[in-house]
Amino acid sequence: MKLYTSRLAPNPRRVRWFMAEKSITDIEIDEFDLFTGRHKSPAYLAEVGAPVAPALVLDDGSVITESLAICRYLESLYPEPNLFGLDPRETAHIEMWTRRVELTAANPMMMAVRHGHPALAALETQSPEMFAANVARAQKALEPFETRLGETEWIAGDRLTIADGILFTSLEFARMVKFKVAENQPHLLRWQAAMRERDSATAGT
Amino acid sequence: MKLYTSRLAPNPRRVRWFMAEKSITDIEIDEFDLFTGRHKSPAYLAEVGAPVAPALVLDDGSVITESLAICRYLESLYPEPNLFGLDPRETAHIEMWTRRVELTAANPMMMAVRHGHPALAALETQSPEMFAANVARAQKALEPFETRLGETEWIAGDRLTIADGILFTSLEFARMVKFKVAENQPHLLRWQAAMRERDSATAGT
Repeated sequence: MKLYTSRLAPNPRRVRWFMAEKSITDIEIDEFDLFTGRHKSPAYLAEVGAPVAPALVLDDGSVITESLAICRYLESLYPEPNLFGLDPRETAHIEMWTRRVELTAANPMMMAVRHGHPALAALETQSPEMFAANVARAQKALEPFETRLGETEWIAGDRLTIADGILFTSLEFARMVKFKVAENQPHLLRWQAAMRERDSATAGT
Repeated sequence: MKLYTSRLAPNPRRVRWFMAEKSITDIEIDEFDLFTGRHKSPAYLAEVGAPVAPALVLDDGSVITESLAICRYLESLYPEPNLFGLDPRETAHIEMWTRRVELTAANPMMMAVRHGHPALAALETQSPEMFAANVARAQKALEPFETRLGETEWIAGDRLTIADGILFTSLEFARMVKFKVAENQPHLLRWQAAMRERDSATAGT
């Protein structure tokens, strides 16, 4: 298998975080800079089918894109440690938390970077209002996770899951526009410090 | 089990579509109008844990929210017909298409309704610019699905899956602001007509 990926971009980094947590080292990594536009080249489109990274090319040439679809597929091949759930009920619970992270917090953080970082002006018609609105949305979105992490060690409960990986990599990405967990959010800060100590913290950077 | 749901809202409708496709009739339906604010009441929050619908209350009192987490859980209990994939590779492929539908098309359609329909003025500070931008995004997002449906009968391939349900229910919801598949998109129109003929087409309406 081969993974098309790009340094620092948020969706590739999710997959790299996931691979690091599982100590996956036998997948070929083809890393490129999205600013080169390689993902829009005829050769890339012919192979991958869409102008996106990450993309996982299987040995038969079929391709999986979308960070969470790639991670769930890798979990089937590398089951340890489990990050998506061990039975349908736990899987549903973890997916619920993962989607809350993604839809309420990760998406506005990503949009804040797109509208607020000079390097991304080439990708987005940037708007200071959109930047401010998305920063405010992301800040508001962190409140329930601060409450949650006052009750549980990790986002989905008593063990690390994909939900932690999505929130952590999003917060790391949002550092590009100086977005931070607030000083009065001790539970999030405790959790973030624990995530930063893991070997996975810098995967894909 | 009990499902909290609300008529016409897009996320509850996904679950109702899914239940209709599987002919699930033994889950208690507690339907309420989101405009009454019941989902923000102390009793609801104490039971469900978040001010959202749909929410599936299991027999032990634990709760799953998020439409796709609920559907995937129901698939484990009601496996026929399969809508999420029969093996890890097909599951990944279906999740890839489902996420493309959701992130590129369903989300802007939902935002277009929030910014464009008078009934939703109570939920959103509406903006004509946001309405127009989201309509444009949704129109653009349909183009690759028109191409796809020129190659395959259904979104994820040769059989109906959850990806079709998400796109169909989103398009039905977007009719509230007169959003339509374009007349020059024959493959989408063929697919939409087939979806409308199914018994699931009006579930949750």
